[in-house]
Order: sequence, then structure tokens, then C-alpha cells
Amino acid sequence: MKNLYKYNLTDAELKIKKEISKLKSDAGSHSPSIQTLSQLISNLDIKVDACFLSNPFATELFMKYFKRQILDADRFQDLLEFYPSQNKVIAQYFSKTIGVDAKNIFVGNGAVEIIQAIIHRFTKKRMVIIIPTFSSFYEFALDKVDIKYFTLKKSENFRLNINEYINFVKETKPDTIVIINPNNPTGSYLLQKDLTKILNELSFVENIIIDESFIHFAFEDDLYSEVTIAKMLEDNENLYIIKSMSKDFGIAGIRAGYALMNQVKVESLLKNGYLWNSNGLAEYFFRLYGTPQFVDEYKLVRMRYIQETQRFVSDLASVPNIKVYPSFANFVLIELPDTISSELVSFILLIRYGIYVRNCVDKKGLDGNYLRIASRDQKGNKLIKQALTNLFE
Amino acid sequence: MKNLYKYNLTDAELKIKKEISKLKSDAGSHSPSIQTLSQLISNLDIKVDACFLSNPFATELFMKYFKRQILDADRFQDLLEFYPSQNKVIAQYFSKTIGVDAKNIFVGNGAVEIIQAIIHRFTKKRMVIIIPTFSSFYEFALDKVDIKYFTLKKSENFRLNINEYINFVKETKPDTIVIINPNNPTGSYLLQKDLTKILNELSFVENIIIDESFIHFAFEDDLYSEVTIAKMLEDNENLYIIKSMSKDFGIAGIRAGYALMNQVKVESLLKNGYLWNSNGLAEYFFRLYGTPQFVDEYKLVRMRYIQETQRFVSDLASVPNIKVYPSFANFVLIELPDTISSELVSFILLIRYGIYVRNCVDKKGLDGNYLRIASRDQKGNKLIKQALTNLFE
Repeated sequence: MKNLYKYNLTDAELKIKKEISKLKSDAGSHSPSIQTLSQLISNLDIKVDACFLSNPFATELFMKYFKRQILDADRFQDLLEFYPSQNKVIAQYFSKTIGVDAKNIFVGNGAVEIIQAIIHRFTKKRMVIIIPTFSSFYEFALDKVDIKYFTLKKSENFRLNINEYINFVKETKPDTIVIINPNNPTGSYLLQKDLTKILNELSFVENIIIDESFIHFAFEDDLYSEVTIAKMLEDNENLYIIKSMSKDFGIAGIRAGYALMNQVKVESLLKNGYLWNSNGLAEYFFRLYGTPQFVDEYKLVRMRYIQETQRFVSDLASVPNIKVYPSFANFVLIELPDTISSELVSFILLIRYGIYVRNCVDKKGLDGNYLRIASRDQKGNKLIKQALTNLFE
Repeated sequence: MKNLYKYNLTDAELKIKKEISKLKSDAGSHSPSIQTLSQLISNLDIKVDACFLSNPFATELFMKYFKRQILDADRFQDLLEFYPSQNKVIAQYFSKTIGVDAKNIFVGNGAVEIIQAIIHRFTKKRMVIIIPTFSSFYEFALDKVDIKYFTLKKSENFRLNINEYINFVKETKPDTIVIINPNNPTGSYLLQKDLTKILNELSFVENIIIDESFIHFAFEDDLYSEVTIAKMLEDNENLYIIKSMSKDFGIAGIRAGYALMNQVKVESLLKNGYLWNSNGLAEYFFRLYGTPQFVDEYKLVRMRYIQETQRFVSDLASVPNIKVYPSFANFVLIELPDTISSELVSFILLIRYGIYVRNCVDKKGLDGNYLRIASRDQKGNKLIKQALTNLFE
């Protein structure tokens, strides 16, 4: 860490930094999109969007189908001109693919709409949230809700200590608990048997929300078989499983997600709203997700991306002076040396290297210098490794 | 009305009718989309979707821009791959076009998301709803909300009786009132001066919701100048103006809408949710709506559609045995003879003529045999007139 000059910004760089800071403060606790950045700051040349948690190979796959079935078939106008189908119709499209009855599926305008729907409707008094985590879970809570935080320990590599957590929930007596598996931004993963234990021990909690938005990047065997806690749905009326399609299918702009829950809860949500909450593109995606050929091809790009990601995480381990945390998600949490702020490093990566990463300085429950770096394709990941090596060797 | 054989269905027709009825009952109080119908009922040949309240010329205009700026420029992947911008960023795109400060704009995933957002958040106890109207306003109300109905009178051509309405609201003391202008499904329009009188007389009501989703089809002068009550926003902190973009811009599948309201209300909604609630296509649309060239071209297709619609309404007046109500929307309410049910007529129009209309049998506050028929292009409108003439002459 001798070359401290690396971390001195030029006047031009300081000017860009100021513009970015303004945008970030406008965007609240989420990063401004790469589009917003590029439009408003003309001097930026973004090469790798490693803030963006998305499988690029899946985007290619979707585009291939979309081009053939919609664009080349001149059917695009239908998707944008007409009202999309309603929740129950869309749920039927992919019910077989995920092996869950359509009556247990609530389709959402992205997972964030579903998070909002569930906690606004069903959380009455107290919620236990594991931090650091995705901020919407506590930000969306209504004012009347008392939030208790259970903080993951750095000394335990941010893995959830099951027994301590169970005791904490028993003492705190919340009506809602939230577990993101794998967790964002730590990448830590709870084995299905551990999650099952939690469900069994905490059956008194009225609403148990498991967010599986990153679950397609996790695996428990050598074949990378998909895992999910959906099998517990039948015996646990208090279970909600939330699933974003943005990350694993590489389609964040489409806004598609779903949640699995007891039929009574689905009916309750649909009774007072959520009419036409999917757009034409999302409806097309969910229909595609119901076709075996697409699902088969998706399995291949899922596996390809997991392998690339796991290789990337291993590769980063050789960058000196940073700590790389184990990850079962499509991103990796890295800890920087104490002497240099993660905020400054994120600016330097963006301005000098064109690499956009998530600086975790504002992440509740994560004290220190951390960056969350998304895995991209091989070329992008190489650029990230090179930049980090340049900065920290 | 001699040829009653016209109204006897064959066995094959009865079979299709049964399938349609099943779909309709699944869709609740809204009509199944033409896509859902066509997919699930193979024998249907739908020629005119006159259930669908949308300017077809505006769809063409949007497609022209979309083709040039997105498809041909190979920029489509950006729209679906990346997270869209957040509410405040998108509000800025078209703030100038509508002449309202971005801080007063709440952007929604279609107007129905906004209806739900406003009444779930701000309606606490009692709502006065004018019927017949768009059903979501009473369907979305939470269970705790007491709904009082003010029924439009057939004897007054379903025009709102201003003084009676004002007295009713004063007696009922609601915290929320809703006025759709022009109203759906009656097509009746309240002049700006009448609406202003209502706002002034009922200033004690905490939430006054004016739904202007059909306002682009209304006019008060020979130039068809656009009208809106937005000018009252500044002096009325209790005013919410809801605007769907689906109908006038012909893009229902995109899911785009906005509402204008006091800044404090916008902040309140965004504080606990509505993150990434616009998709990439909607963001593109709102950006387009901020460009003067598009807006100028839109004005032309708006005018063309108004002229076609007004001609259609006049034409229908010559169909014997039906009553055509005046309309300032893009549809027309027609009343059928007592002897023949509107439900049966809607099936016959669909099965024999390929014309899909909205049968109003389930519309609260509308007793009798009514159809709501959307205006389409000249060719579609001619087919509708011919079919009705065949049936009723």
C-alpha cells in the first residue's frame, strides 16, 4: 500500500465525483442506474457494470427467443398495445415449471412490489431483519412497525448463526421475519436443512418471508441442481417465498417477479388491488418460462454463469490486501484495507477504469470498507480483477 | 324487433359462449383480454376489439418512434436488461410537457397502481363514489372503508347533477371523493368550471381524486384544445389527479400512468415503496413524452381520433331501436331494447361478427341493457355500425 498517489483524485476527477455523489444522494439507498449515470455525466465511459446483479448469458438467451418469437414475427405491437392478462392467468403459465400450484402464486411487478405488498398487508407490529441486507425490507415497513435487527458477524464470515438467531426471534416475538437466501450483500447461503430447522423452530411467527431472489446461483451438489424451500409451503401457512426474475434471467428492465404463499394470502392481496400489474413484456417472459425448451436452455446458461462466478470469486482471492468473502450469489463481498475508504475506491474504479461497483458504506450492519462486486462475463470479470490488482498490489 | 331468430344461438355458438363465460368469471369485474380470449378459444375470429379503450393512431405513432429510436438502433436490450430509473428521475422527463413541477408527480405502473396507492394510503374512513364508474375505485378500498354511492340518473343522461352531488357529499362527510372525468362507462363530461365549483365547495374533503384518464378525448372549444384541472393543484392540497397513458397513447401493455398531487403526498408514497415500479418500456415512453417533436405529432393523432370518435358516435345515432348517450370519451354507452339482454348481444357480436364489446350487466349503478363500445379506426367503427344495424333494424 505504498503508492498512495493512486488515491489522489485530479481536479477533473473530483468534478465527476461531485456529480456522481449528487446522483447517488438523489437515488436514496439504491445506486443510480448505469443509464442515469451515463446520461447525466457525459465524461463517464462505463466498461463493466459490476453494480448490476444479473446473468448476462440469460439476457442473451431471452433476446434470442424474443427476437425470433416477437420481433421477427412482427408481434411486438401486441405486447405494448393491449392490456396484459391478470395475475391468475399469468400464474398458470409457469406453475408447472416451478412445480407449484397456480393458486399459490402471486405475480408481481418485480420482487420489490411483492416485498411492499406483503409487509404492508400482513406485518402488523414487529419485524426481525437480518443485517446487512437488501434495504427495502426495512425501508418499506410502515411507521407503525417496530423493527429489530439481528446483525451478522464478520468473525463468522457473515454466515447466520442459526441457534443465536432462533433464540433472538423467540425473545423478540415478532409477527414477521425475513431471510434472504443467499443473502445480499454478503453472498452467504443457508443450507436447506438449516432453513428447514428455522421454519420448524419458529413456526409461531405469523409471517416468515424467505427471499430467494438469488437462489438460482446457489447449489448444494456437484451438479449445481437448483434448490428452493418451496417444498415447505404446503405445511407452513406462514411461509412466503419471494422470487425476483431480474437477476437469474437477466431482465431487470422487464420487472418480473413472483411470490409463493398460502392461497388465502394470494386471494387477500388480489381482492383489493394488483390488477394488470404485469406488463406485456413480463407476460411474454412468464409464458416463455412455461415452455420446456426455454427452461432447458436456461439451465445451461445458469450453470455457465455459476461456473464463471465461482471462478471469479476464486480468482479475486489472489488479489493482495483485500479479503474476499465466500459467495453463493452472483456477486462477491470484498473488504478493503482500513487505510483507504471504499467510497473513494468505488469512485476511482468508476472514473479511471470504467468499472461500476456497489460501495457498501451506507449498508446498515456493515461497518468498514466493503465493496459488493457483481460477476459479469469472463471479459468483464478479468477487467475487474486487473483493476483491483492495480489498486491494491 | 321482429326477427327474434337472430338471437337464437346454435349449439356450436352455445359452446363458445360457455367458454367465454368461464373466462369472464375468472377475470372478475374486468373483461378478459383479447389475447386471453384468442389463446383459449380457438374458434374465435376477433376483427374489432371494441372493448379496448385505446387510440389506435397513437399506437402507430409510438411504434414509429420505437422502431426508429430503439429497435433499428439496436437499443432494445438496454431497456429489458437494466434496472429502470426511479420515480423522481422519470417524473423529470415529462414535467415540462405537462407543465407541472416534477416534485408533484408520482409515476405509476399504470393508473390502477396509483388508484390502489392513493386509497390504501390516504383513505381512512369513508369514500363517496359516483356510479356507474370504473370498478377499481370501490374494489380496491380496504375493508375498513365505508363506501357511499352517488348514482347518476338515466333521466339526466348520466350527467352529474352538481348541486345534488355537493349536497350529498356535505351530508355524507367522507374523507375521500372520486370523480372520473370524462366518466367511464357513461362518457359524460364535467366542464372545468363545474369541476372548479365542486373543488371550491368541497374543500373540507381530505382527498379529492379526479381521474383524468380519458381527458385527452374531451374538449371545450372548436380547436379541441386539451383540458385539465391541473391548474387547481397549487391551491388545493387535497387534490389528486390520476392519469392513465394507456388509452390516449395506445400503450396499455406498457403500464404507464402518473398522478399529480401535493409534494408531501408524493414523498409519503415514495418513502415506503414504489421502487423501480416503472419498467424499461415505460421509462422510454415517458422520456419520449418529454420531447417536443413527439408531443407535436401526438397532438395530431389525438385530434384525428377525437374526430373519428365523434363521427362514430353521431353515426350510431342512426341505428334504429338503440339509444346512444353523448360521449366526450373514446367510447360510447348504448342502451338496447328491453326485450333483448345486453349479455346475449355481446356474445352474438363476438361470436358472429368478431366484435368484442363491453357488456355492462355487472356495472354497479347501471340497471338495464347497456353496452360500452370503444371507438376504433374508421374501418373498425364501420364494422361495428353494420353489425348493430343488422341486429337491431
